[in-house]
Amino acid sequence: MANFGVIPGNLIAESVPERVCRGTGQVVIIALAILLTLGTCRPGAGASDYRFSHSGLVAGKPGDRVIYAGSECDPLPSWNDCPAKRAIMDFIARVTDEDGPDFVPAAERVAAFDNDGTLWVEQPMYVQGMFAIDRVRALAPEHPEWRERQPFKAVLENDTAALARMSKEQLADMVLAVHAGTGQEEFIGTVREWLAQARHPRFDAPYTALVYRPMLELMDYLRQHGFKVFVVSGGGVDFIRAFSEETYGVPRENVVGSSLEYEYGADGRLVRVAKLGKYDDAGGKPESIALHIGRRPILVAGNSDGDLAMMRYAADGGRPFLDLLVHHDDAGREWAYDRESRVGKLDEALDEAISRGWTVVSMERDWKRIFDDRTG
Amino acid sequence: MANFGVIPGNLIAESVPERVCRGTGQVVIIALAILLTLGTCRPGAGASDYRFSHSGLVAGKPGDRVIYAGSECDPLPSWNDCPAKRAIMDFIARVTDEDGPDFVPAAERVAAFDNDGTLWVEQPMYVQGMFAIDRVRALAPEHPEWRERQPFKAVLENDTAALARMSKEQLADMVLAVHAGTGQEEFIGTVREWLAQARHPRFDAPYTALVYRPMLELMDYLRQHGFKVFVVSGGGVDFIRAFSEETYGVPRENVVGSSLEYEYGADGRLVRVAKLGKYDDAGGKPESIALHIGRRPILVAGNSDGDLAMMRYAADGGRPFLDLLVHHDDAGREWAYDRESRVGKLDEALDEAISRGWTVVSMERDWKRIFDDRTG
Repeated sequence: MANFGVIPGNLIAESVPERVCRGTGQVVIIALAILLTLGTCRPGAGASDYRFSHSGLVAGKPGDRVIYAGSECDPLPSWNDCPAKRAIMDFIARVTDEDGPDFVPAAERVAAFDNDGTLWVEQPMYVQGMFAIDRVRALAPEHPEWRERQPFKAVLENDTAALARMSKEQLADMVLAVHAGTGQEEFIGTVREWLAQARHPRFDAPYTALVYRPMLELMDYLRQHGFKVFVVSGGGVDFIRAFSEETYGVPRENVVGSSLEYEYGADGRLVRVAKLGKYDDAGGKPESIALHIGRRPILVAGNSDGDLAMMRYAADGGRPFLDLLVHHDDAGREWAYDRESRVGKLDEALDEAISRGWTVVSMERDWKRIFDDRTG
Repeated sequence: MANFGVIPGNLIAESVPERVCRGTGQVVIIALAILLTLGTCRPGAGASDYRFSHSGLVAGKPGDRVIYAGSECDPLPSWNDCPAKRAIMDFIARVTDEDGPDFVPAAERVAAFDNDGTLWVEQPMYVQGMFAIDRVRALAPEHPEWRERQPFKAVLENDTAALARMSKEQLADMVLAVHAGTGQEEFIGTVREWLAQARHPRFDAPYTALVYRPMLELMDYLRQHGFKVFVVSGGGVDFIRAFSEETYGVPRENVVGSSLEYEYGADGRLVRVAKLGKYDDAGGKPESIALHIGRRPILVAGNSDGDLAMMRYAADGGRPFLDLLVHHDDAGREWAYDRESRVGKLDEALDEAISRGWTVVSMERDWKRIFDDRTG
């Protein structure tokens, strides 16, 4: 938002905190901005009770990044000014305040985000399931045996009732079958091609447009404050790597996920073989974090019971932490589901989040908009 | 080296390339530097045939980092101006030259360094073996059965002949026994305590002082050019994580190594259990690179046959690559060993490096100094 003049004053008043956001090195630009916006970069009626002062956003030294009046005063513009946002702002302020009791050195600021249902849509089926179904169809001519074997048969006959009953094991079986036997770049290329043309059945949009805008803002905000942001998913690591850099700003090496075994053969080919290496769900998440990251995260975001173990792992570290549990309660703009859902079941984790005072994010209440490229 | 005046002219003349190193935004400082050094930042008799012009070291825009005359003109001052150094400089120049045919985007500039014998000393025994021996001694009172079991017996009786015959499997067995059953931070803490007091038997110095200065310079130089630097070791991942950040500037998440299985229990404790997760040597190295990094490296540095697979992996990618093979041929300052060595055996990889034209780094010829904190 480079042009201050077009920002309606009331919008700014809504989204800015008590202090004027400025970089001392650039007062002329800021003064101009203030003139143009008629001094609106002040709290409105619903102003928050937190401050930017600890967060580093109020620049104090020449050479600091200039914070312009407008939405950049508010690093999380897609979040309503409700307790979840306040908890995030407060947490980041505390762990980055060098003089405070909760300071955490930058090297130790590890944030772990679940993927499906936390960063992008997971209904009516995990995106990777959609991909696997399309791959089964594409590869069917080479596999006549699939015509009589479930769940392949259901896919090829478009038997939606049978598909809806597909177990996690069957899904895993299908995923193994269509994911194995390829090199890493080859597989990532296949996923990228698929993502470029696949459309979500309800929103008729590419899946990568159905990522949650508030979470993208949060990941950016964390990185600006020295956090290292990782995706830690039950989904396939190379599947997510196909879009994590462009879509989340998360480089491939920061993606942790379920994986097939890789085999480096005598012929010098590295192949993904049809054998599960790690199923990165539930207790597998803290285990993979230990292996890949080597540090207990201080911020974990998840949305289902599969994320409970890594949320506990953050909570039990004996130091400041923030656990965010995204609750899908917005049937109008996205979906509403929790305890009974086959996809992204949220039951035990919801109870524990409430009883331990973790931060439950209501999609309906906390998020102004849902998706990145659509008005949710 | 901030004080230009004290640099002997002949040293500078030896180590700088054809072009004057300057940042256009800071001509006054540079002019002063040139006056002080009497214009010595020009090629000497032995000047190299490479140029800084592609490497980004010659700043072109206001705001660029200023490159001072003096040793900073030479990013690899501990390397002699021999073919290995030239190959490194040339490679980095080519892959960072946006207009050149060999340009590689920053996200894809992955560099993988072996640890033992490539980044620090591995003789007379792998450092982790030394650690394991000391741990066996420390834990012996709790394990009376070790008194009759090899290789523990040999350790406790200080039977150097038996220790010298210890197989890789026995070493692994011993490592498992003393590494398992602890949490991650607890183990890392134990290693740090040990490193703080252990001394190398020959050099009577802490092991972390026995890292190779030329390689530290190389890692820095790579990072300055947008490379992501990883350690990919047959050694234990958490062992290396205990010192990688302070010593190499490599954060824990960029360390890939052999690992025990981690188990997240119902009690919420994450424990390293006595079961090998991955042995990250030979073919295991490219496999672990695929899992952890998700990209084929374009630069690999190693020193033994255990590194051959990942060197091949870089070489077979159909794109620019640099494979560096450190050859321990300096018995005076360090050690001389290769084809017959029990530690860091280098045989097949040496033949292949020579036949495929990879860059063999002679410690004796290529390195002005060996260690970081000692004059090698």
